[in-house]
Amino acid sequence: MKQNLKKELENIAKEALQASRALAVLSTGAKNAVLKDMAAALLNKRVVILKANKKDIAGSGGKGRAFIDRLTLNHARIKQMADSLLDIVKLKDPVGRVLRAWKLSNGLRINKVSSPIGVVAIIYESRPNVTSDCIGLCFKSGNSVILRGGSESLNSNIAIYNVLNAVMLKHGLPCGAINLIEVSDRKAVDILLKFNNYIDVVIPRGGEELINKVVSSSRIPVIKHYKGICHVYVDEWADLNMAEKICFNAKLQRPGVCNAMESMLVHRDAADRFLPGMLKKFKDAGVQIRGCPTTVRIAKWAKAATEKDYRTEYLDLILSVKVVQDLDAAIAHINDYGSHHSDSIVTEDRENAKRFLRRVDSACVYVNASTRFTDGNQFGMGAEIGISTDKLHARGPMGLQELTTYKYMIFGSGQIRE
Amino acid sequence: MKQNLKKELENIAKEALQASRALAVLSTGAKNAVLKDMAAALLNKRVVILKANKKDIAGSGGKGRAFIDRLTLNHARIKQMADSLLDIVKLKDPVGRVLRAWKLSNGLRINKVSSPIGVVAIIYESRPNVTSDCIGLCFKSGNSVILRGGSESLNSNIAIYNVLNAVMLKHGLPCGAINLIEVSDRKAVDILLKFNNYIDVVIPRGGEELINKVVSSSRIPVIKHYKGICHVYVDEWADLNMAEKICFNAKLQRPGVCNAMESMLVHRDAADRFLPGMLKKFKDAGVQIRGCPTTVRIAKWAKAATEKDYRTEYLDLILSVKVVQDLDAAIAHINDYGSHHSDSIVTEDRENAKRFLRRVDSACVYVNASTRFTDGNQFGMGAEIGISTDKLHARGPMGLQELTTYKYMIFGSGQIRE
Repeated sequence: MKQNLKKELENIAKEALQASRALAVLSTGAKNAVLKDMAAALLNKRVVILKANKKDIAGSGGKGRAFIDRLTLNHARIKQMADSLLDIVKLKDPVGRVLRAWKLSNGLRINKVSSPIGVVAIIYESRPNVTSDCIGLCFKSGNSVILRGGSESLNSNIAIYNVLNAVMLKHGLPCGAINLIEVSDRKAVDILLKFNNYIDVVIPRGGEELINKVVSSSRIPVIKHYKGICHVYVDEWADLNMAEKICFNAKLQRPGVCNAMESMLVHRDAADRFLPGMLKKFKDAGVQIRGCPTTVRIAKWAKAATEKDYRTEYLDLILSVKVVQDLDAAIAHINDYGSHHSDSIVTEDRENAKRFLRRVDSACVYVNASTRFTDGNQFGMGAEIGISTDKLHARGPMGLQELTTYKYMIFGSGQIRE
Repeated sequence: MKQNLKKELENIAKEALQASRALAVLSTGAKNAVLKDMAAALLNKRVVILKANKKDIAGSGGKGRAFIDRLTLNHARIKQMADSLLDIVKLKDPVGRVLRAWKLSNGLRINKVSSPIGVVAIIYESRPNVTSDCIGLCFKSGNSVILRGGSESLNSNIAIYNVLNAVMLKHGLPCGAINLIEVSDRKAVDILLKFNNYIDVVIPRGGEELINKVVSSSRIPVIKHYKGICHVYVDEWADLNMAEKICFNAKLQRPGVCNAMESMLVHRDAADRFLPGMLKKFKDAGVQIRGCPTTVRIAKWAKAATEKDYRTEYLDLILSVKVVQDLDAAIAHINDYGSHHSDSIVTEDRENAKRFLRRVDSACVYVNASTRFTDGNQFGMGAEIGISTDKLHARGPMGLQELTTYKYMIFGSGQIRE
């Protein structure tokens, strides 16, 4: 049984590699025509997709309301999936850009040219729309894709996949170009992660357990899309009015996402001026506070924070708060406790801002703005695969460009090395 | 014992992370001053280094002459090491470059800025000069480095390391900035590869066994510097005179390096015109040929190639030769049997050249030039850590720029997300 599974998965990976050779040289026009047909097909076949989704929802009894909300598809959400594909049509083709061109004294001309990575595997939990988003982004960037979604949305994923793959085949594209692992056997991921001869990169999107599992068993390079423990630091020289708006927005505009604030740091000389009003606002909005001793002194109703609180991504109406001695203590705390995702300083002092920007080791570092802007769409990059919390290859929002690598094309006229 | 080793290595990794925060914000002037002092110190202390090197040579009895040659240091080679450090002084600081800057309609300004990766671990075999080269490159790019050299050159590496680290300390830099693992226990590498909390990237440089070991046990992202199975394909429309010179150079100018040709492919319609003269030349130069049936028919003295020959990096005076049916067969062979390092086509046909460049999935693809140019120095990038055979983050020659990542610095005036 396990041997059969391995064989089956290896065939998928091999065909994906084979197909990637064809995708790499597709014209922009050909790719866009497919994406437009995919968008139309999603709308045409929405009843089939909604029926499959109903099965998933029926099978998820006992899970929480937020879980079921993420899982649920409806007409509007399918329309959004189709619109996302049409947005990808509008994005510039990331393949074949000349990133740099130069000439050597021996006459060799070197072009550094963007090219597809090859075969991308994406392991994800949560929303079924990820299935069509990832297919669209990988296809436009000339990569084959192997998807492994969560078992909770398997029926929905299969339905979406079948609709999109039918479009691929109608356009005469190789059947290995887009793939969905349909077996629910948990061993499938372990097996897949050993296929470093066929798969070029694995992108896990999900919780700590999933990420750790992938990192510890993968022989394929991994780009982690991990948690966001994002901070806002309110400096001694902050405009406290601005700070209040930014902190409130960073926590509450959408608490369940990775770029929401999980921890608020306040300079000790701003604490007495800032915290009473700010904490009251949070309390009124239903946010539970877990604070350091100073915080608890100022707001008696707050719970005392544990060490673990400062390392927790709540994704909920809970906020850890810490009063710090100075800017450097804030920076050290963020580098130690944070997840290197998005962190912001509120200050009117340019030197402090500069120090924060240079020394905080995160993908996105902000001055006087909410952390909620960390997002491919907000950044103007268009649709995104997600937010990389790794430093290699792609950091922060990961869009079409980050789904490419490069190669050097060297043009000679008989040059040999002396 | 193993617990002690783990503790000891963890302390090194922790201190390296701590030190990386300081290195990341060092000025270019400060870094260059250190590098100049390092170069001077290598020359001043050369007797100490040569004495240590003698011990290594004495301990390497029974190894071949090439091995001992690679291991041996002398005055000229120490001078080269010092000169390499001075070359790094001249290279532009790769940290703090604004890679892209743009403004959003809400007034947010985004700068994508190059920044150090953090902590780089390098696991290598072979030449002791790698020790000083890697220290220089990682330091200039603002990264802490943890080096693990081969046991055969341990004494030399320790001597070089001590000289360079003394300069670091004299300049008041943290002692965790440059590190050499001096314990010869083989478990050290396994332990190190689990420290993904402290180390950002591992760069293994060496043979198949080393690379496989690192890939299968690392939890840290790996950038492989692996073998070069490089091809030259002589097209039907090649200038055969040029082809002969390029193939001869690619094989023989320095056969023991990764960008030397290991396999020569020839279009079947060029075989009878090209191979007799070319193979004779190789034979006269002492190159053993392992060929396909057509090759053996043309040169009776050639050995028949096995499947394995086409997947072998000889690094020696041996060449595999294959006559192929057409351009696409050549491309398919290279993508299947090669190591995605450097491959060249010799042709006067622009369409064939273009097809080869687009479809061969290698770091460096050449038209009408020797593969021997794949080298940071030749490319004008300056000194290099090596040649990455991976596709993520860095592909091909990996120099100072490739030792950086980036972060987004976002400047606001109170922006919150609606």
